[in-house]
Amino acid sequence: MSKKRQIKLGAFLAPTGHHAASWRHPDTHPAGGTDFEHFKKLAAIAEKAKFDAIFTADSDGIWSRSADKEVLRRDGHGPGFEPITLYSALSAVTKNIGFVATASTTYNDPYHIARKYASLDLISGGRAGWNVVTSGNRDAAYNFGLEAHPDHGDRYRRATEFVEVVKGLWDSWEDDALIYDKASGVFADPDKLHTLNHKGEFYSVRGPLNVPRSPQGHPVLVQAGASEPGKELGARYADAIFAAWQTLEDAQAFYKDVKSRAPRYGRNPDHIKILPGVYPVIGRTEQEAKDKLEQLRALIDPKVGLSLLSTLGGLDTLSAYDLDGPVPTDLPETNDNKSRQRLLLELAARENLTIRGLYEWVAGARGHRVIHGTPESIADQLEEWFVNGAADGFNLLAPTYPTGLVEFAELVIPILQKRGLFRTEYEASTLRGNLGLPIPENRYAAARLQAKSA
Amino acid sequence: MSKKRQIKLGAFLAPTGHHAASWRHPDTHPAGGTDFEHFKKLAAIAEKAKFDAIFTADSDGIWSRSADKEVLRRDGHGPGFEPITLYSALSAVTKNIGFVATASTTYNDPYHIARKYASLDLISGGRAGWNVVTSGNRDAAYNFGLEAHPDHGDRYRRATEFVEVVKGLWDSWEDDALIYDKASGVFADPDKLHTLNHKGEFYSVRGPLNVPRSPQGHPVLVQAGASEPGKELGARYADAIFAAWQTLEDAQAFYKDVKSRAPRYGRNPDHIKILPGVYPVIGRTEQEAKDKLEQLRALIDPKVGLSLLSTLGGLDTLSAYDLDGPVPTDLPETNDNKSRQRLLLELAARENLTIRGLYEWVAGARGHRVIHGTPESIADQLEEWFVNGAADGFNLLAPTYPTGLVEFAELVIPILQKRGLFRTEYEASTLRGNLGLPIPENRYAAARLQAKSA
Repeated sequence: MSKKRQIKLGAFLAPTGHHAASWRHPDTHPAGGTDFEHFKKLAAIAEKAKFDAIFTADSDGIWSRSADKEVLRRDGHGPGFEPITLYSALSAVTKNIGFVATASTTYNDPYHIARKYASLDLISGGRAGWNVVTSGNRDAAYNFGLEAHPDHGDRYRRATEFVEVVKGLWDSWEDDALIYDKASGVFADPDKLHTLNHKGEFYSVRGPLNVPRSPQGHPVLVQAGASEPGKELGARYADAIFAAWQTLEDAQAFYKDVKSRAPRYGRNPDHIKILPGVYPVIGRTEQEAKDKLEQLRALIDPKVGLSLLSTLGGLDTLSAYDLDGPVPTDLPETNDNKSRQRLLLELAARENLTIRGLYEWVAGARGHRVIHGTPESIADQLEEWFVNGAADGFNLLAPTYPTGLVEFAELVIPILQKRGLFRTEYEASTLRGNLGLPIPENRYAAARLQAKSA
Repeated sequence: MSKKRQIKLGAFLAPTGHHAASWRHPDTHPAGGTDFEHFKKLAAIAEKAKFDAIFTADSDGIWSRSADKEVLRRDGHGPGFEPITLYSALSAVTKNIGFVATASTTYNDPYHIARKYASLDLISGGRAGWNVVTSGNRDAAYNFGLEAHPDHGDRYRRATEFVEVVKGLWDSWEDDALIYDKASGVFADPDKLHTLNHKGEFYSVRGPLNVPRSPQGHPVLVQAGASEPGKELGARYADAIFAAWQTLEDAQAFYKDVKSRAPRYGRNPDHIKILPGVYPVIGRTEQEAKDKLEQLRALIDPKVGLSLLSTLGGLDTLSAYDLDGPVPTDLPETNDNKSRQRLLLELAARENLTIRGLYEWVAGARGHRVIHGTPESIADQLEEWFVNGAADGFNLLAPTYPTGLVEFAELVIPILQKRGLFRTEYEASTLRGNLGLPIPENRYAAARLQAKSA
């Protein structure tokens, strides 16, 4: 490895931006969530800037815990596209950028997920990634015939088995299983087509998958979640990990922790790319950046602010307290987003925040690291984490889209490139290739090779 | 309606064509099933020719009932793309053509299906259709944790409830539910967002859907199946119906039967487009067409031929008999594809076919109507059914792709256009618009209007 290590970048897209009030900002397109042309434009900006991938969050239901009509009326987190459908369309009009689509292991069948991501990976020429989530939106349960959202431990056991099944299905066809010999009439080599025959605690899946291997072998697996089972799942399976850390020390501890778990699963720690979220507020001066932060803050509706603390942090009961009073310290632990909830309560205590102050904080980066300042200062803040064992790259959450993405692309990326910290051309046509990740061997081909050499 | 009634055309795509041995034909691309550029080319040909839609079949598993390795080795029905993923990518590189993607009501959740088709409909600007199937591939059960494929009656009860749920979810957001008023901070009108609260025999789905209505209101619903429950499902919900009939009389009877059921469900019979399958073998002379038929027939492997009778007609036990002997008349009725099975047995009896003769027949059009001859003769045969109450249009199954599609587009369509029987320009940008179908009213908006006028 003579080549200098470089920052990997994901663009975490959202229709109008990551600030909860971004849809009210003069620069944004509030109907963008259901406008394909809008996403096409965002993808083109990210690809031109040489981002590794674009990414969107997902939920199998609408985001509104309360039956409060005022929240529904004022919450800009509107309806939108199912991610794989969106990314497949975007793959036809882009060349190099990767697509990290979120799908839940709690409310899907592994066969469908294996099939859809394998299809997207083939259609895109090897640019698909799956962000494995266990669903933070507990209301999704009611859309799938369940009485309640499974608890945290159950969801993670399910996720582990689910990923295992999907990876098995992705190996159904060895890379040279399809022969296509017209003259002899041999279409495939049946000895290179494999039936999984999985029977586990949650799933019983025979296989084989009806999609062959793609140029990536397996789509890239992405994961987030800083709870103990979350970290285990990441260390075991993830090619890339999204994270939310406020301080260099916390990010370093997480980075070291996860990478140290990898060898236990026979994995090379360098093959797990850790990408903390960053929310950059870019100004020509420090003051301009601060003014931008305030401009969005003033647009937050209090009802929406409180609902964010509920949906994103599991803090449901705060509406009973004075908005301008302190955040109570004796709230019960909930079933969802445990790591995010802990982060929020610690932050409120450390910074002595009121409830309003806490939601203003969450309404921006939602627990991710806020960095503000001039382009040089933003680049410095990214470099600091990258060179000090806290990050292999970053997942960018711009306050507004497209403006925030364009600013980062035009003002910050050239500085990173000048420092040799970011690519000037794509290294590869696949997401794995750009992330510097190996192609997973087909398990059956590997076993055959091993048997031969033994 | 002063405008002359015109033929509606679907292009039923398959990677190399509809003949089971098409992958061995010199003109075809045997790896086309996993080559997105190949499908892009097919879609472009169909769109240039002004087809209403392209369509593909689907199965939630590989097509091989037997563990017979020789069938796996020689069967050209290989792995491929999941349809919605494929069509979403195609929608980004086309403008007018519709997409009819198949999905099973037996092995999916209604929430996911409602969401994906609504997303495809928005992304494509109103060009999505859902071909509702109950799954002919009984092996799919093993990929979804079931011990056995549910029986025919059960699958149709499930399908009826499933479609009902999906249609309900598609109405979650009234057309004017999203407000996007930046100044006042009003994003949506909560009184125009509706929760389905469905609790039925098979499904319990709360809603609302997290995708709004599209330009079509609802994606186009397509259905096939000539059994009694199949016809009921079609008459009740389908905007278009695929069918397989050999004779004008049978096709007329089906046409009349289904249309006569529509009023019982409060539907206009003209809003159900009946599209029998046709398998055209086009030659400059009759003899050339017949030679083309024979050329493909010679490429069929007997093992593959027998497996087709099993997978497509539920005729599993024929391999125990002499290939060149008669088709037995005392076979037991099976659980799958009842109408197709009956059709095959009647055909064998009527035409006095051997088992080899039956699979040679099936290996081409799989029970669909074969028409062969010069372009003028093909046009005559289509017109005959269209003007005599047997069809509103046709679903084209070309023997080979792309050749068979190109021949139809370049030789037959201009004749139909000259006769005024087919469009020369698309009438609309949506599939409903081109098919001449109304946009379904939102049920809640309709109820409000009715309440107001009462």
